[in-house]
Amino acid sequence: MSGMPGQALTDWSAAQLARTEAALSDWVGVGAPSDLGQAMRYAVQGGGKRLRPLLVLAAREAVAGEGHSGVDAARDEAALRAALDEAALRAACAVELIHAYSLVHDDMPCMDNDVLRRGKPTVHVQFGEAGALLAGDALQALAFELLTPERSDIPVAVQAQLCRLLARAAGAAGMAGGQAIDLASVGEQLDEAQLRHMHQLKTGVLLRASVMMGAACGTPGAAALAGLACYGNALGLAFQVVDDILDVTQDSATLGKTAGKDAFHSKPTYVSLLGIEAARQCAQNLHGEALAGLAASGLRNTERLAALADMVLLRSN
Amino acid sequence: MSGMPGQALTDWSAAQLARTEAALSDWVGVGAPSDLGQAMRYAVQGGGKRLRPLLVLAAREAVAGEGHSGVDAARDEAALRAALDEAALRAACAVELIHAYSLVHDDMPCMDNDVLRRGKPTVHVQFGEAGALLAGDALQALAFELLTPERSDIPVAVQAQLCRLLARAAGAAGMAGGQAIDLASVGEQLDEAQLRHMHQLKTGVLLRASVMMGAACGTPGAAALAGLACYGNALGLAFQVVDDILDVTQDSATLGKTAGKDAFHSKPTYVSLLGIEAARQCAQNLHGEALAGLAASGLRNTERLAALADMVLLRSN
Repeated sequence: MSGMPGQALTDWSAAQLARTEAALSDWVGVGAPSDLGQAMRYAVQGGGKRLRPLLVLAAREAVAGEGHSGVDAARDEAALRAALDEAALRAACAVELIHAYSLVHDDMPCMDNDVLRRGKPTVHVQFGEAGALLAGDALQALAFELLTPERSDIPVAVQAQLCRLLARAAGAAGMAGGQAIDLASVGEQLDEAQLRHMHQLKTGVLLRASVMMGAACGTPGAAALAGLACYGNALGLAFQVVDDILDVTQDSATLGKTAGKDAFHSKPTYVSLLGIEAARQCAQNLHGEALAGLAASGLRNTERLAALADMVLLRSN
Repeated sequence: MSGMPGQALTDWSAAQLARTEAALSDWVGVGAPSDLGQAMRYAVQGGGKRLRPLLVLAAREAVAGEGHSGVDAARDEAALRAALDEAALRAACAVELIHAYSLVHDDMPCMDNDVLRRGKPTVHVQFGEAGALLAGDALQALAFELLTPERSDIPVAVQAQLCRLLARAAGAAGMAGGQAIDLASVGEQLDEAQLRHMHQLKTGVLLRASVMMGAACGTPGAAALAGLACYGNALGLAFQVVDDILDVTQDSATLGKTAGKDAFHSKPTYVSLLGIEAARQCAQNLHGEALAGLAASGLRNTERLAALADMVLLRSN
């Protein structure tokens, strides 16, 4: 565990979550035809841990202390700081939209055919399959809209870098690729390396991208970037290991989604592969790797990131 | 009709299409798990008119003659020209990927449930529904990957502007929004203004974006931009009017897709609303508006754009 008091994270998280929810509420479904806008808001509202936005904002905080002259030496430091804070908030929302769209599509009958998500009917149950398909598609596009506002002081280099990081994390070499491997491996016998690769793509890459997008709203040096990447990698994998553990140890009410479905679908998991105790040890080791990455980064303000690593390890849903 | 000889367009188009096909072949499905990569390539290959890429490249040609010092005065003109030519090729492919993904999702059973596209089985018939869903999702992400290459001389302002234009054209206030209106209006009585609004979003906005993305690979003045926007608007709408005419006048073999399906699904069309003759006149008027936009732009090299407007009006599929 990191040394940070739990209450400080709670206060910080509450403030950041309030900003994120307000921004999502301002930005999602606006200008959309009514049914589509409703489905998009439904998909994004009411939920989840918002881990990805918190990672973006915590990483932004970690790099903000380093100053911003590397972004644009000609600009006033205070104005640049405000623009980069806005960029981080937009990035936080954008990565959450990618996550939200992936859940909408993943729940559809042709994929996991799930009817319950965070205790609510899934989007296709509520808005029909075609409505869910389009809402997911529009949420993905909206993520890139948020990163490239029409009139903004956000440096164009930061806008382009955020799009670059998010597109790669969402695409065929990232989340969508992981989903495809998952689809192809139902009922297959995977070894640990294959399982790790699948999860790295399916969930790990987007979690790491959250960290790197926060870092892109500043000018960390090479060592800081490498340390943050190490943190993001380890945290991304730890998240999935813990997810697999929770799937067998928690009931549906606590999870807010159908428990035990991995076993039901004969999906390979860390628990089915390693057993529950070794899976717990694996998560613990990854938590240590994440903290080691923070230490190696040389950045000073990494308390929030450390506390988020704790949260990932200790979460119950 | 514009005064440009047909053969000159044919030669230019053939050269641009060869570049586009080669680029798509280099960039689509690379780094994807094998099933996903195959489905992505299948969705993009073998077809279509590639109207959107041609619009991007023709618009780039129209603005290229104006010089590039407005993009970056500090850079060598020849190097900048090469970088902007590359940006236009990437934009041409990116907009085609958005178009391709929309067809993949639109053909799915929960949408139009179409089994034939360009004379081939649709993606979900070939790769399953889940495969088609993921291929579409990954194609959308890839579009933004192409616009933000890892190492590139393309000015970051151009990269950000291309993402900005494409994301808005693809999203809830553009193509996805138009699909949602289309979905909600099956069997409904729309008037001409409502029909125009639906088509403007569903197909018009992406066609206009193609023109504006080509223009963004240069530094046209305000009058030139306004003229190109006028051209793009009119062309986008003309395309759909002609599509509706073809749906009732051509057979499936010529179209390469199921003919008469609008009437079968009781979808409102320009032909059902205006009658065939008035629809033809409407397309002719829009063609005139498109050419008027080019004239108003004050740009010199607009012959390709004019010829593409002719092609849209005169096409048989």
